[in-house]
Amino acid sequence: MALIVQKFGGTSVGTVERIEQVAEKVKKFRENGDDIVVVVSAMSGETNRLIALAKQIDEQPHARELDVMISTGEQVTIALLAMALNKRGVPAVSYTGNQVRILTDSAFNKARILQIDDRKLRAELKAGRVVVVAGFQGVDEQGNITTLGRGGSDTTGVALAAALKADECQIYTDVDGVYTTDPRVVPQARRMDKITFEEMLEMASLGSKVLQIRSVEFAGKYNVPLRVLHSFQEGPGTLITLDEEESMEQPIISGIAFNRDEAKLTIRGVPDNPGVAFKILGPISAANIEVDMIVQNVAHDNTTDFTFTVHRNDYQNAHAVLENTAREIGAREVVGDVKIAKVSIVGVGMRSHAGVASRMFESLAKESINIQMISTSEIKVSVVIEEKYLELAVRALHTAFELDAPSRPGNEE
Amino acid sequence: MALIVQKFGGTSVGTVERIEQVAEKVKKFRENGDDIVVVVSAMSGETNRLIALAKQIDEQPHARELDVMISTGEQVTIALLAMALNKRGVPAVSYTGNQVRILTDSAFNKARILQIDDRKLRAELKAGRVVVVAGFQGVDEQGNITTLGRGGSDTTGVALAAALKADECQIYTDVDGVYTTDPRVVPQARRMDKITFEEMLEMASLGSKVLQIRSVEFAGKYNVPLRVLHSFQEGPGTLITLDEEESMEQPIISGIAFNRDEAKLTIRGVPDNPGVAFKILGPISAANIEVDMIVQNVAHDNTTDFTFTVHRNDYQNAHAVLENTAREIGAREVVGDVKIAKVSIVGVGMRSHAGVASRMFESLAKESINIQMISTSEIKVSVVIEEKYLELAVRALHTAFELDAPSRPGNEE
Repeated sequence: MALIVQKFGGTSVGTVERIEQVAEKVKKFRENGDDIVVVVSAMSGETNRLIALAKQIDEQPHARELDVMISTGEQVTIALLAMALNKRGVPAVSYTGNQVRILTDSAFNKARILQIDDRKLRAELKAGRVVVVAGFQGVDEQGNITTLGRGGSDTTGVALAAALKADECQIYTDVDGVYTTDPRVVPQARRMDKITFEEMLEMASLGSKVLQIRSVEFAGKYNVPLRVLHSFQEGPGTLITLDEEESMEQPIISGIAFNRDEAKLTIRGVPDNPGVAFKILGPISAANIEVDMIVQNVAHDNTTDFTFTVHRNDYQNAHAVLENTAREIGAREVVGDVKIAKVSIVGVGMRSHAGVASRMFESLAKESINIQMISTSEIKVSVVIEEKYLELAVRALHTAFELDAPSRPGNEE
Repeated sequence: MALIVQKFGGTSVGTVERIEQVAEKVKKFRENGDDIVVVVSAMSGETNRLIALAKQIDEQPHARELDVMISTGEQVTIALLAMALNKRGVPAVSYTGNQVRILTDSAFNKARILQIDDRKLRAELKAGRVVVVAGFQGVDEQGNITTLGRGGSDTTGVALAAALKADECQIYTDVDGVYTTDPRVVPQARRMDKITFEEMLEMASLGSKVLQIRSVEFAGKYNVPLRVLHSFQEGPGTLITLDEEESMEQPIISGIAFNRDEAKLTIRGVPDNPGVAFKILGPISAANIEVDMIVQNVAHDNTTDFTFTVHRNDYQNAHAVLENTAREIGAREVVGDVKIAKVSIVGVGMRSHAGVASRMFESLAKESINIQMISTSEIKVSVVIEEKYLELAVRALHTAFELDAPSRPGNEE
């Protein structure tokens, strides 16, 4: 007898047939005696359909009204799933974000959850009902409908689990867990049984698309055990927890993440004065461009080179901003490259093991892969390399850090 | 400077283009200095699409959940219209039934409005905003989403107008007003400038589909001036008011309504005992069949004939119920006919004029149309005739009561 929050994304509820399958799954948990809160997204394609409709009226739709509109996507799904459960003799009731009262700030289209009123949910659970909650949405202090931004349903799931002190928050998706790296690149990639919040955060921020970063942060903050599972296959999935001690043989590196979405920009011959980093990044930030890695080497002849990465979509824009800055501060030139890739090794184990970075660099050197940028954190080392070497680098590192599975995984059924 | 509630139905907001046209219309009223509350339905076809989706899950969808689902139709429209208004520089804000707080009872799919909180609406109007409210929906005491049943958006409009003490509630539709009878049957039919609530109620209950009966009742009860107008043509429409004195030359008959949806059933040779009417209609009512006209003649040889009409869809069912009853009470036989039509003359003027019914009967007799049943109210006389004579009867009565227009109307633009 546990209290479980289960979140099903848009693909898992994309058709009536899939909603019926989800209902079957929930029914089994109920028959086990578990109390269940289900969080669902809009049926896949629905949010895009609604946004397209809004854009027919206004290319820049009014932010408040857009939330009124797109929140209907989840509202349809909760009703359908509650119907499917009731049809099966499983008492169920649907709740919109407003009905639960998932209180958010008023940042329409990208609101943040402030507080969840758990009273109605607890009363429904006590009455023996499955509660089906609309993901992605909430309501502000004034009663305006808000949405949490793309992928916000994961966050809703975790926030509900935290508010209800659930035993587990299960995120159902189209993969059967979190892998040591992308199996499409490395066939020997393994599903991890367990990973820490910190590692998952690094994996997610580095391009592993299994979970939304915000939801992992949230889960870590409130210590909500999070499990990634396949919607329509059996299996234990991957458990994401705080507890890094439990497993005795923690590997040094848990996984290898990578990302091809970035581009790098370098401003050369920058006069080495105090405040110059702000002069360079201030205008970039003012143009709403997010910066990922930043590298500045020690000065040489009183000038220095300053390099950073941005999303590829922002490259042209960032380049133009930087040209201006270069003129203003008297830098020599601006150069850039979009054909780069970032590869990162992630693992809480590296905290207590020296030499992890050097083993990474050695392994890349063996393959004659040149490293363009390096950045490190407590549990991560990232390098930027030429894009064409990406697959080679990931496979080499996967082997070097002993992550390879004996045979091809993913056929567990 | 007036406060006007404007209601646009599903066809009037059926496409993005039409929503833009509605926004233009609302903008003009705002530029006139009027305060505007707009009530909209779901885009035409949307409610049916949602119901079909629900029926894929369950042929008898859970009533509460069906309301959660179909209420999204209006929610999409309010957002789109508010966007279209804001785009035009007309400050506008959308409100769901729950956000206004249109409090209803908990009769899902057919809820009735209990109370409307006008505070938020008044604040928005005071701040210079057009308020776009979702028709057809409300919320019960427990916070469950409810819908008012088909056509409920008219009722929402009238209820809001009553709560706000609006100067007028304008119902925009696909006809340019209320006609003396159906122009498809009588080309000389005239648009009425004015009609009383009572007359409109009789016209509506007799098959004139311009307005929903509940909304007319509501408007009459709270004395909300109601105007029927064409969504996309200019024109004064038809005003529906309490005030029957204002117009000096009130015609005796305002209009002629008709209805082909009914069937008649007769139970013959019923022993003429007290309580027999209940014995006949009790089981019909228990089978959820609604009865319209009821006629019982004086007894003859201690037996009587009892005739009533039901909706044609209920004919088979009612016939079976009646066969049972006939056996139980010892009646002679059950006969029936679906090929009937009901024709009614309606007008508050007939209260003070004798001979209206006889003029009607005379006019039908001249055309050799046999009258099968008669029923009367203070402002209406209805007859049932053979269906094939319907058009003939309506045209004859339209002429006899001097309702014909000099020429074909409807080309006022």
